[in-house]
Amino acid sequence: MLQSALFTKALRDDPKDALSANARLLERAGFVHKNSAGVYSYLPLGLRVLKKISAIVREEMDGIGGQELLLPALLDRKYLDATGRFAVDVGYDVRGKKDDAVQYVLGWTHEEVLTDIATRFVSSYRDLPFSAYQIQTKFRNEPRAKSGVLRGREFIMKDLYSFHASQEDFDRFYLLAKEAYLRVFRRCGLDALYVAAGGGAFTASVTHEFQVVSPVGEDEIFVCSKCSHAENSEISKLVDGSACPACGGAVVKKTAIEVGNIFPLGTKYSEALDLRFADENGERKHVVMGSYGIGISRLMGAVTEVHHAEQGLAWPLSIAPFRVHLLDFTREGTRAKAAYDALSSAGIEVLWDDRDVSPGEKFASADLMGLPFRAVVSEKTGDMVELAKRGERAGKLMSVSDAAGELNHGI
Amino acid sequence: MLQSALFTKALRDDPKDALSANARLLERAGFVHKNSAGVYSYLPLGLRVLKKISAIVREEMDGIGGQELLLPALLDRKYLDATGRFAVDVGYDVRGKKDDAVQYVLGWTHEEVLTDIATRFVSSYRDLPFSAYQIQTKFRNEPRAKSGVLRGREFIMKDLYSFHASQEDFDRFYLLAKEAYLRVFRRCGLDALYVAAGGGAFTASVTHEFQVVSPVGEDEIFVCSKCSHAENSEISKLVDGSACPACGGAVVKKTAIEVGNIFPLGTKYSEALDLRFADENGERKHVVMGSYGIGISRLMGAVTEVHHAEQGLAWPLSIAPFRVHLLDFTREGTRAKAAYDALSSAGIEVLWDDRDVSPGEKFASADLMGLPFRAVVSEKTGDMVELAKRGERAGKLMSVSDAAGELNHGI
Repeated sequence: MLQSALFTKALRDDPKDALSANARLLERAGFVHKNSAGVYSYLPLGLRVLKKISAIVREEMDGIGGQELLLPALLDRKYLDATGRFAVDVGYDVRGKKDDAVQYVLGWTHEEVLTDIATRFVSSYRDLPFSAYQIQTKFRNEPRAKSGVLRGREFIMKDLYSFHASQEDFDRFYLLAKEAYLRVFRRCGLDALYVAAGGGAFTASVTHEFQVVSPVGEDEIFVCSKCSHAENSEISKLVDGSACPACGGAVVKKTAIEVGNIFPLGTKYSEALDLRFADENGERKHVVMGSYGIGISRLMGAVTEVHHAEQGLAWPLSIAPFRVHLLDFTREGTRAKAAYDALSSAGIEVLWDDRDVSPGEKFASADLMGLPFRAVVSEKTGDMVELAKRGERAGKLMSVSDAAGELNHGI
Repeated sequence: MLQSALFTKALRDDPKDALSANARLLERAGFVHKNSAGVYSYLPLGLRVLKKISAIVREEMDGIGGQELLLPALLDRKYLDATGRFAVDVGYDVRGKKDDAVQYVLGWTHEEVLTDIATRFVSSYRDLPFSAYQIQTKFRNEPRAKSGVLRGREFIMKDLYSFHASQEDFDRFYLLAKEAYLRVFRRCGLDALYVAAGGGAFTASVTHEFQVVSPVGEDEIFVCSKCSHAENSEISKLVDGSACPACGGAVVKKTAIEVGNIFPLGTKYSEALDLRFADENGERKHVVMGSYGIGISRLMGAVTEVHHAEQGLAWPLSIAPFRVHLLDFTREGTRAKAAYDALSSAGIEVLWDDRDVSPGEKFASADLMGLPFRAVVSEKTGDMVELAKRGERAGKLMSVSDAAGELNHGI
């Protein structure tokens, strides 16, 4: 893409009230725009990142048999009344201009809706197990919405729900989901810990979170420095410096960002919405369920917090909006155009800074945007390009086709 | 995909309150689920159709230079107050459980938000023109929400906004957008008329709608049977049987489904939100704007209304959830598996009905789902398949590789 065609620009100054790196850098680099507290627009560059994260999540959810669908955001109160969650604080009430009563709650989770839909299709053990997921905008009334895209009132989430004939089958799938989650985070460039936690408004069971250690995290976890056993301080009886019960290693307190969670739900929702199946003996039993969330927009924020430098963003290859930033310092532009065309033809996503601005401004905006590679075409490079990884001062001079090879390497 | 793995099933009976073909057939075939009046879930088959429509829309919007982004659904009231649209009836008010006042209006359109964002990036004529679009869930408080996915309270929409330095440049783009819209509808299998209409809550100008003639349409239009000139009855001075002013042809009244609209907005929004640019002489002027909508979920409904038979749906190739329905009537399934693998390897999307049900039930569910082709493997077909177009009783016996050729033909 030609940078001159992008309607957004890097901003000269930090936004006024941005406390965290993700809020500051994503907004300055033109990836997001803050509309109000906890409410963001995803501008073209930011949406490209969200789409890449979503594609990874879809691959991994499809890989464990998840079927994608899309549930509504307007939840009729019949759904939440069925489980007593109508009045939960994070829900936003919706009513028409002339309505006397609340008509809907904005979807902050979808256990009830999907369980109710499943009653239409599940009657026998032969209809189980199955799992379904969506990637959807969710709404939660967060009092503390001041960590950029880490804690939004409106945010993008993948939520998967699984349905099983027995606790054993649920346990089997729960492990599959855990492994798929760890692959998602690894592929996005994050080292996530698997942490025991409480169930909040979802379940009374012990649940598991995926936490990425970061100073801006809002969670406090205890991690064993020997075996990585970890517990959220909300439920943990460990303290900083105590011995890990699993291996005796030293436990350390850390702050972390929760990027995903998986919940054993038992039969809480299938009982509330009467989702039953006939087993092999014809006995009608309640379906055993689980739910599994990943914050897609939060993941973008978490990657930003973990991977950035003072001067800008630093995207992992897998989710970068473009793979290489082509900086053109020549007057005529024909060699940059040839390089752009050749790299694009080789299947490489190129952002070509073709703007009529100074080299200093091009370098600064490239540093801010943080694409994984930079390719410079200047009066000195001749027909070659100078290819550098993000953060490297000097690049290597090479032919455009060698650069294409380097850039495609590691896909 | 294996049909046995799909968690949805065709339902035996029509839904109780479905008045239109799209509500009846889409729900019976397991494409959608009605959650409450005007609020639908898109189940795996339905979401596949929406994704194909979205892909066509994206291609055409990218083709005219549109940049994709994602704006919020929670609209802070500052935006709508700027144009006096806070109290418009179609808006839904949102408040937290403990809020005294309305915090947000659910996004039913996004002129204000994007105009405000543009003030951050537009300062000179060199920053214009540009256009940006999103594919997003929209919310409108529709009193008449009883036409299935044709008129939802929650629905999926593509909305594009364009920004120009002059009326002339806007006019140029408006024609480009019109042509792109006509291509979208044609590619989705719809014959859409370009119709002059009123601007509703958007603008005082004459605008244009794209209307598909259908008995279930909620709009009344006058169409010239000679030159296709068409006007919405809301603004038209024509009557049934009058002579068309453009060519003298006979005007006929028809009912139609509005599938898209394009609005010249002039400087209404740029004045309200103070979006200005410096022209070549340094004079600061208001940006000239347009907005352009396509109802993605409504388009699925319109295609259903136009293309269906009594016994089921009938998807155009371009947006069918799968291209071919493989029906296996053998006992052992190995030849069906070989055909499934060969067709899938040839890049064809196959839904394989591998369920242990009667041939009659397989034919009935295939008729209901309405994929463009049906391939039968039976004891009679040997290593061949019997390939038929939807609606054809008898198919042609051919080898699997010939079938792959036929199925890929016309992609």
